[in-house]
Amino acid sequence: MLLALAAVRAALAAHLPPDRLRTADLEPWSSDATLQPGRPDLVVEPCSTDEVATVVRIAAAHSLPIITRGSGTGVAGGAVPARGGLVLSLARMNRILEIDAPAMTATVEAGVRTGDLQAAVEARGLFYPPDPASLAECTIGGNVATNAGGPRALKYGVTRHYVLGMTVVLADGRVLRLGGQTHKQAVGYDLKQLFIGSEGTLGIVTEVILRLIPRPGYRATLTALFPSLAAASAAVDAVLHSGSLPCALELMDRTTLRMVRAYLGAEVPVEAGALVIIEQDGNAPAALAAELERAANLCAAQGGFAIEIASDDESRARLWRMRRSVHYALEAAAPSFRVEDTVVPRSRISEMVARVEAIAATTGLPIAVCGHFGDGNLHPLIAFDVRDADQAARAAEAERQIVAAALELGGTLSGEHGIGLLKRPFLATAVGAEVLTLMRQLKRLLDPQDLLNPGKLLPDADAPGLL
Amino acid sequence: MLLALAAVRAALAAHLPPDRLRTADLEPWSSDATLQPGRPDLVVEPCSTDEVATVVRIAAAHSLPIITRGSGTGVAGGAVPARGGLVLSLARMNRILEIDAPAMTATVEAGVRTGDLQAAVEARGLFYPPDPASLAECTIGGNVATNAGGPRALKYGVTRHYVLGMTVVLADGRVLRLGGQTHKQAVGYDLKQLFIGSEGTLGIVTEVILRLIPRPGYRATLTALFPSLAAASAAVDAVLHSGSLPCALELMDRTTLRMVRAYLGAEVPVEAGALVIIEQDGNAPAALAAELERAANLCAAQGGFAIEIASDDESRARLWRMRRSVHYALEAAAPSFRVEDTVVPRSRISEMVARVEAIAATTGLPIAVCGHFGDGNLHPLIAFDVRDADQAARAAEAERQIVAAALELGGTLSGEHGIGLLKRPFLATAVGAEVLTLMRQLKRLLDPQDLLNPGKLLPDADAPGLL
Repeated sequence: MLLALAAVRAALAAHLPPDRLRTADLEPWSSDATLQPGRPDLVVEPCSTDEVATVVRIAAAHSLPIITRGSGTGVAGGAVPARGGLVLSLARMNRILEIDAPAMTATVEAGVRTGDLQAAVEARGLFYPPDPASLAECTIGGNVATNAGGPRALKYGVTRHYVLGMTVVLADGRVLRLGGQTHKQAVGYDLKQLFIGSEGTLGIVTEVILRLIPRPGYRATLTALFPSLAAASAAVDAVLHSGSLPCALELMDRTTLRMVRAYLGAEVPVEAGALVIIEQDGNAPAALAAELERAANLCAAQGGFAIEIASDDESRARLWRMRRSVHYALEAAAPSFRVEDTVVPRSRISEMVARVEAIAATTGLPIAVCGHFGDGNLHPLIAFDVRDADQAARAAEAERQIVAAALELGGTLSGEHGIGLLKRPFLATAVGAEVLTLMRQLKRLLDPQDLLNPGKLLPDADAPGLL
Repeated sequence: MLLALAAVRAALAAHLPPDRLRTADLEPWSSDATLQPGRPDLVVEPCSTDEVATVVRIAAAHSLPIITRGSGTGVAGGAVPARGGLVLSLARMNRILEIDAPAMTATVEAGVRTGDLQAAVEARGLFYPPDPASLAECTIGGNVATNAGGPRALKYGVTRHYVLGMTVVLADGRVLRLGGQTHKQAVGYDLKQLFIGSEGTLGIVTEVILRLIPRPGYRATLTALFPSLAAASAAVDAVLHSGSLPCALELMDRTTLRMVRAYLGAEVPVEAGALVIIEQDGNAPAALAAELERAANLCAAQGGFAIEIASDDESRARLWRMRRSVHYALEAAAPSFRVEDTVVPRSRISEMVARVEAIAATTGLPIAVCGHFGDGNLHPLIAFDVRDADQAARAAEAERQIVAAALELGGTLSGEHGIGLLKRPFLATAVGAEVLTLMRQLKRLLDPQDLLNPGKLLPDADAPGLL
């Protein structure tokens, strides 16, 4: 490895401008939002697809693993160089190459931040809906790698639904251009779908062509408290079955509300079993108001109280403040937390939350559930102290039980965060042996040397499953 | 082949109920909507996934090709047994297994007709948007095989965006279950994406779990005539950039209007360069009316005339009548026609229509362009007489030039119909040699014997491209 490393360094120095290569002070590239420990052998920051291809060819010639990275905001450990290797940061490939307004497409380098792209296209009267929580920092490349979602996925779908084309560097350095600027494509096997959600293990996506849609002009928000999660669930069902498709339909459970109350103080009204946020967007303010009035009535009919509706940005921000504080409230309440990403069929949400409450009771750890009520994608947040071995073990056990509960309820273990490092032990049980075999065959086809993000997504062949 | 066939027949007779097998009067399974000639060696109509697996194992053991088929409404020849083989009809697997209203999913066998599913879910207050023109006859399995779209794709996306899970029988008879009932999934490689749009060449999809959304309560429609396609294009751009996302935005060009006028008579107002249909759906009638009023003004500002708006079903049907008559008008105007399925970046639509007009002029054949103005998916319809060798040759040349023009304008050759038999000669040029190589590798991985729909989608290795 050391010899390979020296040879790779020399070759990179010979083929790339000197500022692309970092060999010291690599701490910022050693982990991601999970804080899982990693150790890059070197960091390369290419500025073009050609430079990426050069890096890949050199690394491949010396069998040095490549861990591709955007902003490092991932919560499954997908970008952590846990076994060393070359960290390929796409952060400097951050140009918006084109916003083609008449064609309603954007062509961007993978390192463009999602929020920056959104601001740029909205300034042109267009809209790029996917809105992961980290959108101020995360990159389009990272979003493609994990098929990222966000609250607006309910109405608008996830990243996969917006990728029209991509440039991808394969494990041998070949550059493929897939898809294009057209909004529809039925031209043989849709290979770009393979790379979306593959977490840097099948190829390195360096450029993306995205579909844009018209920008809705107005937005209005409703919040309601409920005595119980079952009551909230009944209200949400009623709203969805009234023909309404909100652009966000968010949930905070009792534990989350308590933590946020402790953090924000008097702002949080009273003790309640659940908070629901419903947001509508569209082009006619009167229609939005009518939709939310109807939703308010449906909520009230199920025992909803302290119902508020806001349509100006300031009041809307106030209503979203509680949801947006969850992360900080949790950080204030516990030294460490683990983010789960379970999804269950919409009809099983109440059961899933009840299961999580039981798991919190048996493991003795607070577990706050917030997430996307509309599509069943719940994020149980397990609060613990990583320095306490007993608590860490109980957190791991809580995670195991949460994943098992989701699978039992017909759900699965990740909706939008991916498998990365942390969820690998559960993958075999979640998808089954035969599906896993086919995934391995695909990996072997595209990356026969196992150079691209090894030790991620697919479990090691001999690793015991945790379920 | 004859020996294999006798052996397959005997094995099928031994393992399946007798009514599943047809060996005579196979004419109805010999072609599809293209009328391309085919000759099934036998037809099997299994009634369950297990029966499909049995058929596949028997056919694979004797290297007999399998051509999977839904209703045979395809317009690219994908279901035609052009080289003989076993036609596997899924028409009897037509049960809606479950509509889970709270989970907002439907689980269906592949042979369920799209229109039947839509009616069933709408009766439950839910909505399945994809609406290919053949929805009264075509099947969900066929829609998945071609990633079918339709007018509503502009707002709601294509079939791929609604497939949450599937049961697929592989070429060796193994049965895989992919995905599930959850609305979001980020659980390793999303293998179901591989089978969507693969036209029966990688596996046989027997069951599908579909995402449903709330059913919009109201619908309103606008039609406008324009002096020229450029004027229509400017109006459509203005509508989309006003923040409106119509659920349909359809185009008929001058040639189409002339044919429809000849067919329908006085109903078609006056000579015009283009007809545009804009449809909005939603939950607030007043908002729909306001959106269409604004669209009407934007159309008028670009020279639009004879603008009509309708919100009741009867008047809406009248406005759609012209669009829905295109097929019949063409049949009345010419003995044969060929349907193209080009897509160009939205910004190049006017150029593409101008190119088609020039191609019509040089080949001396009428070519009517209608299609989906919102997403750039245009269907040039080449009218000719297949019994006239010279006309047939000119029609083939017109097709070649149309595809070449779409590629030159940054577009591609199919948006929603697929490659099948008829578009294979263009695939290599459309996607490039390296992408084609990777497609072939995938095919080899999943179907090493080339049993599943051989001679479709991928060009033969030694075939010359037509572009």
